Amino acid sequence: MARKIIIDTDPGQDDALAILLALASPELDVLGIVAVAGNVPLPLTQNNALKIAELAGKPETKVFAGACKPLVRPLVTAEEVHGRTGLDGPDLPEPVMKLQEQHGVDFIIETLLREKSGTVTLCALGPLTNIALALNKAPEIATRIQEIVLMGGGFFEGGNITPTAEFNFYVDPEAAKVVYGAGIPIVMMPLDVTHKALTTAKRIEAFRALGTKAGDACVAMLEFFERFDEEKYGTDGGPLHDPNVIAYLLKPELYAGRHCNVEIETASELCLGMSVFDWWGVTKRPKNAMVMREVDHEGFFTLLTERIGTL
Amino acid sequence: MARKIIIDTDPGQDDALAILLALASPELDVLGIVAVAGNVPLPLTQNNALKIAELAGKPETKVFAGACKPLVRPLVTAEEVHGRTGLDGPDLPEPVMKLQEQHGVDFIIETLLREKSGTVTLCALGPLTNIALALNKAPEIATRIQEIVLMGGGFFEGGNITPTAEFNFYVDPEAAKVVYGAGIPIVMMPLDVTHKALTTAKRIEAFRALGTKAGDACVAMLEFFERFDEEKYGTDGGPLHDPNVIAYLLKPELYAGRHCNVEIETASELCLGMSVFDWWGVTKRPKNAMVMREVDHEGFFTLLTERIGTL
Amino acid sequence: MARKIIIDTDPGQDDALAILLALASPELDVLGIVAVAGNVPLPLTQNNALKIAELAGKPETKVFAGACKPLVRPLVTAEEVHGRTGLDGPDLPEPVMKLQEQHGVDFIIETLLREKSGTVTLCALGPLTNIALALNKAPEIATRIQEIVLMGGGFFEGGNITPTAEFNFYVDPEAAKVVYGAGIPIVMMPLDVTHKALTTAKRIEAFRALGTKAGDACVAMLEFFERFDEEKYGTDGGPLHDPNVIAYLLKPELYAGRHCNVEIETASELCLGMSVFDWWGVTKRPKNAMVMREVDHEGFFTLLTERIGTL
Amino acid sequence: MARKIIIDTDPGQDDALAILLALASPELDVLGIVAVAGNVPLPLTQNNALKIAELAGKPETKVFAGACKPLVRPLVTAEEVHGRTGLDGPDLPEPVMKLQEQHGVDFIIETLLREKSGTVTLCALGPLTNIALALNKAPEIATRIQEIVLMGGGFFEGGNITPTAEFNFYVDPEAAKVVYGAGIPIVMMPLDVTHKALTTAKRIEAFRALGTKAGDACVAMLEFFERFDEEKYGTDGGPLHDPNVIAYLLKPELYAGRHCNVEIETASELCLGMSVFDWWGVTKRPKNAMVMREVDHEGFFTLLTERIGTL
Repeated sequence: MARKIIIDTDPGQDDALAILLALASPELDVLGIVAVAGNVPLPLTQNNALKIAELAGKPETKVFAGACKPLVRPLVTAEEVHGRTGLDGPDLPEPVMKLQEQHGVDFIIETLLREKSGTVTLCALGPLTNIALALNKAPEIATRIQEIVLMGGGFFEGGNITPTAEFNFYVDPEAAKVVYGAGIPIVMMPLDVTHKALTTAKRIEAFRALGTKAGDACVAMLEFFERFDEEKYGTDGGPLHDPNVIAYLLKPELYAGRHCNVEIETASELCLGMSVFDWWGVTKRPKNAMVMREVDHEGFFTLLTERIGTL
Repeated sequence: MARKIIIDTDPGQDDALAILLALASPELDVLGIVAVAGNVPLPLTQNNALKIAELAGKPETKVFAGACKPLVRPLVTAEEVHGRTGLDGPDLPEPVMKLQEQHGVDFIIETLLREKSGTVTLCALGPLTNIALALNKAPEIATRIQEIVLMGGGFFEGGNITPTAEFNFYVDPEAAKVVYGAGIPIVMMPLDVTHKALTTAKRIEAFRALGTKAGDACVAMLEFFERFDEEKYGTDGGPLHDPNVIAYLLKPELYAGRHCNVEIETASELCLGMSVFDWWGVTKRPKNAMVMREVDHEGFFTLLTERIGTL
Repeated sequence: MARKIIIDTDPGQDDALAILLALASPELDVLGIVAVAGNVPLPLTQNNALKIAELAGKPETKVFAGACKPLVRPLVTAEEVHGRTGLDGPDLPEPVMKLQEQHGVDFIIETLLREKSGTVTLCALGPLTNIALALNKAPEIATRIQEIVLMGGGFFEGGNITPTAEFNFYVDPEAAKVVYGAGIPIVMMPLDVTHKALTTAKRIEAFRALGTKAGDACVAMLEFFERFDEEKYGTDGGPLHDPNVIAYLLKPELYAGRHCNVEIETASELCLGMSVFDWWGVTKRPKNAMVMREVDHEGFFTLLTERIGTL
Repeated sequence: MARKIIIDTDPGQDDALAILLALASPELDVLGIVAVAGNVPLPLTQNNALKIAELAGKPETKVFAGACKPLVRPLVTAEEVHGRTGLDGPDLPEPVMKLQEQHGVDFIIETLLREKSGTVTLCALGPLTNIALALNKAPEIATRIQEIVLMGGGFFEGGNITPTAEFNFYVDPEAAKVVYGAGIPIVMMPLDVTHKALTTAKRIEAFRALGTKAGDACVAMLEFFERFDEEKYGTDGGPLHDPNVIAYLLKPELYAGRHCNVEIETASELCLGMSVFDWWGVTKRPKNAMVMREVDHEGFFTLLTERIGTL
């Protein structure tokens, strides 16, 4: 039986590849996709989610709109990375399919209350605003979530939007604090792991070699997306973030890490949104997340390319 | 035509008097009462709201349950002030009427979207969690709220739960920050005004003299409630907080204050939840609240007693 | 026998009156005056201290230069209040007397180590930088200080440079934290008391009526100094701050207050430099300061005028 | 001509090796050693400094006592790493030589004012309290310092006393902030470099093979000192911190790093004392430190062993 997941996302090119990977994988049952403001504002992320579902040839996918701004702070976006639309690169048609009418936060709550407890996994690819709102509105869902697998944070690698903070947690640090404090099993894919999965020229060629519409779109997205980090880090290719969340569900053996305490900084301006890992256990704080630091990056890109090739 | 209000509340004896005042006043149309966790946990505040509606002889009042904990922080309660039930003092029967099934946050949102824009006032008597959640989930309501009249904060008077913070804002400072940053017209009744409205022995006698069930309940509630602050401040009677919100709607001329900037401290442990008034305009920060500091306390208690006498 | 004091100061017109009051009072033995950066930069405050000693006809007074900037932060000054020189108003001649060569911080330390323990009082009229540095360099002086009487802070009155912070503590909050944490007996004159001592027109006339050079200088200083607060608060006269420190030494019965805990905010941007009084004892924090809130302002101005009249 | 240095230190076994290296190196002229509270309280660190000078056979070395506690915070020590004395391991005799009478902070100031500007280097091996106090008392020294070479901080490696903070900066974050904000050329040896210089069994044997009193003491110190980190990190040997500062002066080519902005966290409890490197230049903050991340560890240990072998 396929594993039931909800994808919470702010596409974003790397979100797009994660969604494609999920929709291409029979092991996963995508109950719905919920858009959130992040890489670009909500009207764009919700539209991008629709575009990607259509690109995957799955117009039956339920797509919802969630929160248009973080819990407490003004929205910060990242057009310098993702382009004006958030999906710059490929020339995808305007979607024909429609958004669901239900609010994304209510969809998360109702799904978790309806499905058997412990059978629904939340895959979070953007700021954690929607999930925090769902936990705020209906705290009883916390014990019903199978686990949250998320892309966010970074510690030994530093941050990306500031020296200390990764973008998703920086945009809504209070939401991250709510999620990490809720007692839910969390598997996190921080920059410490995603910076080991680089979109090299060879790996992009593998997508091109698929010779499919989805493959070509991935090429266009990756080439647009990687240019920012290639320039910054001087590497062949940039880190690929969000698809690691889905890849972990499919092949957890690709990843290695440590269960430890993670706290989110919300009070300091200098370190705002930083995820502090107590990797060496120097505090008494409780372990609340499985933090990944290693990835079999060849295995990851092989999985990603093969699966997207089936679309 | 009566003014439409929603009462958001964590009863609490002083909340109870505010609700009684509202339900006794034909100028006000109480569209619903939404409970929130605060003085005591949500199961108690929602039950207390039902009890008060029945005490007022208005079992048709719609009562909703809202959030059971603050946006980001663990709940702090105040049983040392309000007693174990939150309504210690009178011996009120368990309510017969039932809670509405809808979530209180959704009730706030749907009401504001359904009613003509600018015709619904939010009266907030507890932590601002529900209102912040409504604003987070549906930011489009912000411009549809006529105004928010709230009890919370304190500056020149200091705080009550800590030297700098008033209880409602201390419990959920992030919610207060959301509300004060939303661009909504706010009238606030801080400790600076409520500490000028003391429940003296003579004023309690006026409730007793009503010779009604509601009057007797008010006596029992006030006598229980005031003991904490009487001991602390050494005064005849304690400050009466929440009914000022409703009294302002009925007789705004009882109050005087100043329109100025108010910011909520969320980063400092020492000053957590403090409401900082820029009363003298020494910063360039925008004016975002009408801050009351003066009350015609005789007029206030006369209004309160007369109206509750009609129940 | 006269009480031995060291005056630590950043003159400033109100510092000047405090110094004149001290030098005019036979009950006090001014061992030295130490300048600190504050109202204006150190080169001006040290020069102003010299000018005032000469105005008092006491060119034998030892004047030292101390710290030219706060412990951790850049210097903030207040020329909008005090004028470009810090002593705008009167036309005082450039001083003939010279600064002592010794660093003011070392003077404080050596004096306290030399004089009998418990016999030297520090009178602090500006940012507490020098005293904190002395405590940092030679912590053994802490138990030898008779007491520190200081002008600084404010709570129920709010701040003056920001809504929450008084100028002296705002300029060097870390220094204030060091002093309040050192276990030294502290008597503080916050804005809560100084705002009850207004330089009314009548009181300024009393200085003019002295018909002396010092009296005329006081008139010129007060008229310049009060204009800022008169405009801000719309009162007849502005609050007179620093002379309360000296007046307390001469006539402590002019003042009333409470011994309580005072903490200094150093972490929050919104409340930076705020002095938080636990006036009502709601925390378990130890009492560390005698906080004055009441002043016999008539008695204060009478004392001030009479004494300065003797110069 | 030998390069003039002042060593500011809280010995500490690794401080001891740094001091021995300096005293053994003819290229360096150790003008004085100033003790500071850190690894253990000041009475122990000053005594340890004397012991090490005698072990080096240089009883003519001037040793001074500096600050016994951090600028603003209570002292935190690290006996669990260094043992009760700070120099646990070898059995060194009580020193015969005496401390200099002058305060260490004044020694730093006077030396910098006396020597030709730009010819004296400060080598800081402990909390930066003394140097911050010197800068506070006499800011004019800032432009006269040739450079500060210091052990402290850590970023990509995380912290050691907390997940984010290295011990020296954690103990006195305000002092670190003062030093990094003073416009002085800084070369820093953070954990990012010192964790690449491990005291392996083979390297300890090389000290034993010296067959000298100093060599044997180094063996005893390193064996005691490394046990804490060996257990924590599960490595052969622990990181050797402080001698990198001296090794850099002797052979800068052993090190590689990047000139970038470094800020010290003083406001957050979670990240207190963290040194934030803007390694990738994502902020506009000015570059204020040369941050080392690479070390030729073989070359480093060879240098260290050979030089100490000459004592």
